[in-house]
Amino acid sequence: MKLRENPPGQGPVTAVVASSAGNHAQGVAFAAKTAGIAATIVMPRSAPMAKVSATQGYGATVELYGVIYDDAYNRALAIQEETGATFIHPFDDDDVIAGQATIGLEILRDLPGVDMIFVPTGGGGLLSGIAACVKQVNPRVKIIGVQAAGAQNIVRSFRAKTLMIDERLHTIADGIAVKTPGSRTLKLITSYVDDMVTVTDSEIAATILMLLERSKQVVEPAGAVSLAAALNNKLDIAGKKIVCLLSGGNIDVSFIHRVVEKGLLNRGRSMKFQTVMRDVPGSLEKFASIVAGNNANITMVQHDRLKADLDIDEAILHIVCEVGGFEHGRQVISGLEREGYRVIMESEENYTGENS
Amino acid sequence: MKLRENPPGQGPVTAVVASSAGNHAQGVAFAAKTAGIAATIVMPRSAPMAKVSATQGYGATVELYGVIYDDAYNRALAIQEETGATFIHPFDDDDVIAGQATIGLEILRDLPGVDMIFVPTGGGGLLSGIAACVKQVNPRVKIIGVQAAGAQNIVRSFRAKTLMIDERLHTIADGIAVKTPGSRTLKLITSYVDDMVTVTDSEIAATILMLLERSKQVVEPAGAVSLAAALNNKLDIAGKKIVCLLSGGNIDVSFIHRVVEKGLLNRGRSMKFQTVMRDVPGSLEKFASIVAGNNANITMVQHDRLKADLDIDEAILHIVCEVGGFEHGRQVISGLEREGYRVIMESEENYTGENS
Repeated sequence: MKLRENPPGQGPVTAVVASSAGNHAQGVAFAAKTAGIAATIVMPRSAPMAKVSATQGYGATVELYGVIYDDAYNRALAIQEETGATFIHPFDDDDVIAGQATIGLEILRDLPGVDMIFVPTGGGGLLSGIAACVKQVNPRVKIIGVQAAGAQNIVRSFRAKTLMIDERLHTIADGIAVKTPGSRTLKLITSYVDDMVTVTDSEIAATILMLLERSKQVVEPAGAVSLAAALNNKLDIAGKKIVCLLSGGNIDVSFIHRVVEKGLLNRGRSMKFQTVMRDVPGSLEKFASIVAGNNANITMVQHDRLKADLDIDEAILHIVCEVGGFEHGRQVISGLEREGYRVIMESEENYTGENS
Repeated sequence: MKLRENPPGQGPVTAVVASSAGNHAQGVAFAAKTAGIAATIVMPRSAPMAKVSATQGYGATVELYGVIYDDAYNRALAIQEETGATFIHPFDDDDVIAGQATIGLEILRDLPGVDMIFVPTGGGGLLSGIAACVKQVNPRVKIIGVQAAGAQNIVRSFRAKTLMIDERLHTIADGIAVKTPGSRTLKLITSYVDDMVTVTDSEIAATILMLLERSKQVVEPAGAVSLAAALNNKLDIAGKKIVCLLSGGNIDVSFIHRVVEKGLLNRGRSMKFQTVMRDVPGSLEKFASIVAGNNANITMVQHDRLKADLDIDEAILHIVCEVGGFEHGRQVISGLEREGYRVIMESEENYTGENS
């Protein structure tokens, strides 16, 4: 590993400091351990335990500081001042960009006939490295940057050809939610990138679920935007050989669960509804037998006896059911309605439409 | 793809039938589609929707029948009788065994210096194919079969050198829970396999969580037993080049969630406890501020006011908290106890011991 040159008047690099809650934290920690130097990584207090443990596992000292990434960034700069440790910027750094460019070389080696490469983009390090590298080797390959619709500063900067900064970020793709893109990266991106597109959080979540179920891969939201862009036809990819970079798996396990739940609801594989039931022995059994008779699997039942407009012997049942799809879901609902249950859907999806 | 020879007097194979709720279902469906013939797959009614949809996605007709695998198996044999379709056994079949042997060739090609191969085993098809192939190419390579401790018919059959059948199966590794191992497979296994070991469900669950968090891979319990055996030192592997076959990812998404929860508790990353609280405004806020002050993240709160031995103004709080590990967990508990809360642990793990 080539370490950066030392500033004049300083000794050799003996310590590095960085701020990140994702790949950069683990990359710096791993590289520092390999080179035998100390690493301090500052993360916001909200960083999931899994990321903290993984970074510590590579031998780094982790300091939790502040609420958002920018607090951690400022704390890392302060540590640099106090200790003289070398600060490693997560994206706006020539060496970091050059390191990420090696992914471009790997793609060209593994798939020489590639037509398009979709790259997740936040600060722009990964995208600018890959674009600068691939375009110099084979200018025919189209390089596409992808960002989340709720955090598209680098997309707007790309279009305006000047840094656009917006404090308001709202996306599940925390790994690429960046207020201030890099100036070095923007220069490379405006020179080498063909186009940039955005994807919604709902598109990202559906892509994560598809990757879990069909590719058996755990990918974080920021890492899945590239495939989400391709799957949702953000550009014409028909007949093209495309590479979608899946650039991170730093996903909290409890978040996986939320994505899965949301994805199952979206696809009609899970449905939520409520119904009123007489609050007497045997009622739940009767209800459950109708659902089971329609081959659906009840995964959650909640009783609510406290609603004002209920009779004293009534209760509201909140139900979550696993079904095969929208059509199967409608069968289950019809089955209940035929037995006299009034069903109110709680899923957002439409169970009355034509298509499944 | 080489299809089996047709029985004398029959025409060419135009339809196949199989019973499975895992890889075999999808493999037969895919192969039949590729060969342009019809496939019917019988699965037990309990088969997760994800497996049903995946198999239908490969173009097969799926029939749900019976409660356990054996019901589906018998129904598939009945379909063979009725329709004349060719039955494809999931493991006790020379062609299926030969197909699985190709994995052995791939391992020898990719890692010629391999010392040991750990193979998940249920009916024995995968194990006997790989063992027969690898031992004939390089007898120095040790072949180890791994089964779940709650379903070890093939392990006992291997030791007894005769078919051992036990109806009582109890394991999360449903993909390798087989009552009756194959007679063809047992013959090959007793000839070519070096040893067989078992792993517990708890070892399997911890391995699945590790694969999710660190390798970013979704592996089903039956597929993870091989790595679980290596990680838990079931045999001496020090200094050896080993391959652990991860042979399936047919895991239900709701099951992933349960494995993750259990794994987090086991590792002290999550803890469950209860405490008594005064049931008045501000109580929960005070409790939550102590937990937050100790950097722990509350992920579940349940109030219980119905316990007989509570005063009228008391409630029991059931809490689940995300923490960094056992040591951090003990800090949180001590912090609460210093403020007068009496804490009763609900996690099985010991929070009073010395080690974290």
